[in-house]
Amino acid sequence: MKLATKPNILILGAGYGGMVTATKITKELGHNQANITLVSKHDYHYQTTWLHEPAAGTMHHDRTRMQISDVVDINKVNFIQDEVVNIHREENKVSLKNTGEVEFDYLVTALGAVPETFGVGGVFEHSFNKWTVNGARQLKEHTEYMFAKYNNEPEPREEYLTFVVAGAGFTGMEFIGELSERMPKLCKEYDIPLNKVKMYVIEAAPTALPGFDPELVEYAMNLLENRGVEFKINTPISEVTADGVTLKDGEEIKSSTVIWATGVRGNPVIEKAGFENMRGRVKVEKDLRAPGHDNIFIIGDCSLMINEETERPYPPTAQIAMQQAETVAKNLHALIKGESLHEFKPDIKGTVASLGGKEAIGVVGNKKLFGTSANFMKKMIDNRYLWILGGTGLVLKKGKNPF
Amino acid sequence: MKLATKPNILILGAGYGGMVTATKITKELGHNQANITLVSKHDYHYQTTWLHEPAAGTMHHDRTRMQISDVVDINKVNFIQDEVVNIHREENKVSLKNTGEVEFDYLVTALGAVPETFGVGGVFEHSFNKWTVNGARQLKEHTEYMFAKYNNEPEPREEYLTFVVAGAGFTGMEFIGELSERMPKLCKEYDIPLNKVKMYVIEAAPTALPGFDPELVEYAMNLLENRGVEFKINTPISEVTADGVTLKDGEEIKSSTVIWATGVRGNPVIEKAGFENMRGRVKVEKDLRAPGHDNIFIIGDCSLMINEETERPYPPTAQIAMQQAETVAKNLHALIKGESLHEFKPDIKGTVASLGGKEAIGVVGNKKLFGTSANFMKKMIDNRYLWILGGTGLVLKKGKNPF
Repeated sequence: MKLATKPNILILGAGYGGMVTATKITKELGHNQANITLVSKHDYHYQTTWLHEPAAGTMHHDRTRMQISDVVDINKVNFIQDEVVNIHREENKVSLKNTGEVEFDYLVTALGAVPETFGVGGVFEHSFNKWTVNGARQLKEHTEYMFAKYNNEPEPREEYLTFVVAGAGFTGMEFIGELSERMPKLCKEYDIPLNKVKMYVIEAAPTALPGFDPELVEYAMNLLENRGVEFKINTPISEVTADGVTLKDGEEIKSSTVIWATGVRGNPVIEKAGFENMRGRVKVEKDLRAPGHDNIFIIGDCSLMINEETERPYPPTAQIAMQQAETVAKNLHALIKGESLHEFKPDIKGTVASLGGKEAIGVVGNKKLFGTSANFMKKMIDNRYLWILGGTGLVLKKGKNPF
Repeated sequence: MKLATKPNILILGAGYGGMVTATKITKELGHNQANITLVSKHDYHYQTTWLHEPAAGTMHHDRTRMQISDVVDINKVNFIQDEVVNIHREENKVSLKNTGEVEFDYLVTALGAVPETFGVGGVFEHSFNKWTVNGARQLKEHTEYMFAKYNNEPEPREEYLTFVVAGAGFTGMEFIGELSERMPKLCKEYDIPLNKVKMYVIEAAPTALPGFDPELVEYAMNLLENRGVEFKINTPISEVTADGVTLKDGEEIKSSTVIWATGVRGNPVIEKAGFENMRGRVKVEKDLRAPGHDNIFIIGDCSLMINEETERPYPPTAQIAMQQAETVAKNLHALIKGESLHEFKPDIKGTVASLGGKEAIGVVGNKKLFGTSANFMKKMIDNRYLWILGGTGLVLKKGKNPF
């Protein structure tokens, strides 16, 4: 039988990288060319870059996820819902928590990221740091519970109404954008005067949104300050505690809701598997393979690539993960056919950060965008992703109306 | 000036008794006959008997309340938002928390009830026991937070999904009716299998809904059991702890959500003021005045009246509070005019308990009602109250559609 000789392609992770790989590879390869397996902890895929919205309660979490079986052709892809425990690089197999071992001929590692604490204590114990559907939902419910509790206390508990976002990067700014925009409605819902609420964004670096155009950063900060957000820039956090945060300068901010958004590192499985890495990210070859491995690709937040223009690593973004996935799909095909592999070249089309409501900032090409035009562009970017994954049908079902 | 000699009528509390007194008295008396003052902790009135719905999350809490100024004629009634600290019976004045002292010529005490613990420890520390808008909202948000947390824990925490209702009286049964009806939707919303949820109703007495027709009680229990509720009847609780409840028979049930619904006692101000009382309730005269006081009426949950047929006290219900209020309004008028006072005679029209969705049980006249017909009657009773308070307009604005 010819079937037995089909190579096994194993894709780990159903984030941006894994999902685009799975959908593209099924188009690249015919039924008889490979067995394709996709492993993910959940039976749904979620759009990590949208999660600040359900986390702040401005969008239902179901709008940020989709059943994997609704998007990936399950006639062509074997789906295993399980957690990856380890990658045995030299033995060409992977350990899963419940399923046991799965062998591969070709591996695509797209396991995403985990929060980076930068050595600050108490992050995992005392902060909201999971940018997942479950994590976003918990943060939203926790926030509402703090509001609901406030009026039942014999003495005012200001920490219930104090929100501390650690990190003024993309995630932190987009989250506080949503939360600050929702705040007047939240206060009304729970009979709480708006002026009782405090919102802080604390950033260790000398600027919010490092790397972004200063004019756009100023626009964003002014806008958020007008909604009641207080920025503490150039202010490292020394510890997260059960009571709030302690800053390096000694100040303590009492808060029942600390949101950790200082950045990410690659999935710990990378380190466990023994790949040479920097903060869980593997400096991949130009064809996206792990150094020394002809059959292992690493993409997305677990991969590291240097931008030759700036000599700094590309940030871990959905945009790059998706582009890498398209290259990996082609390279898997090339490997099977015995052809030469393609080099990956990122094509950064632009970056837009939403700020809640109809507000956003961004750069597309060389053009700076503010307010509604940036907001329009942001929604088009979000819709474009859905289109890549599932065509017009998925955009209509799950997309954002930019108008 | 004649104005200075107008008597001061002071109404304490804006529950069923206080609100009906205030609306009726403004119709009984002309502008020049009395100064009328209403004191309440909140600027809104809420329908206590509806609160199991927002507490379980099946109705928005705003539907169970109304601005006092929308219902009471504020041209005729002076409204003070404050908390009653004490009643100085012999000096004809009342102490308020922020306003200080307020004098009266006639007092209507309609301060409602607080939870009765029957000596069980830990109730106030570890259970949800406030049947108020704030308390209901907190219970709802807490429940949702437990569901949101569950999927974020490394190990299953069954106590998050275990709900213990202490007391199978009216409040407990109506609450579990709503919660059990909502449970499948809650589980879907938070990605939790329904079979992980446990719901208990624990009752010290030998039956659920003591005093209700046994056939109706059986109907209610069967219905709730089919929705997954487990009853423990004839089972006193010995303690509520941070971990759940301990029963008299030694069994411990781990639960993050204990709802206390074993009954009520009169407002503690009654005891503080030195009225002779039983569990905060004053055995009032037939004209609803406190014994020994010609100018103090006590109605609602702070009053005690013996049903001569059964030789037992009437239960503290909205129905009786409202009927008492109508009599008090007439008697205030009679006192001012120097006429003789009316005796109060309760007219129990029926009792209906809702059980969630379209389910209910009840007795109206001599007729037992089940299911949709009882549910219809329950909604008509709720609407009738709104009609008494604010006429057709209020029914249309806040009423329940029985169809």
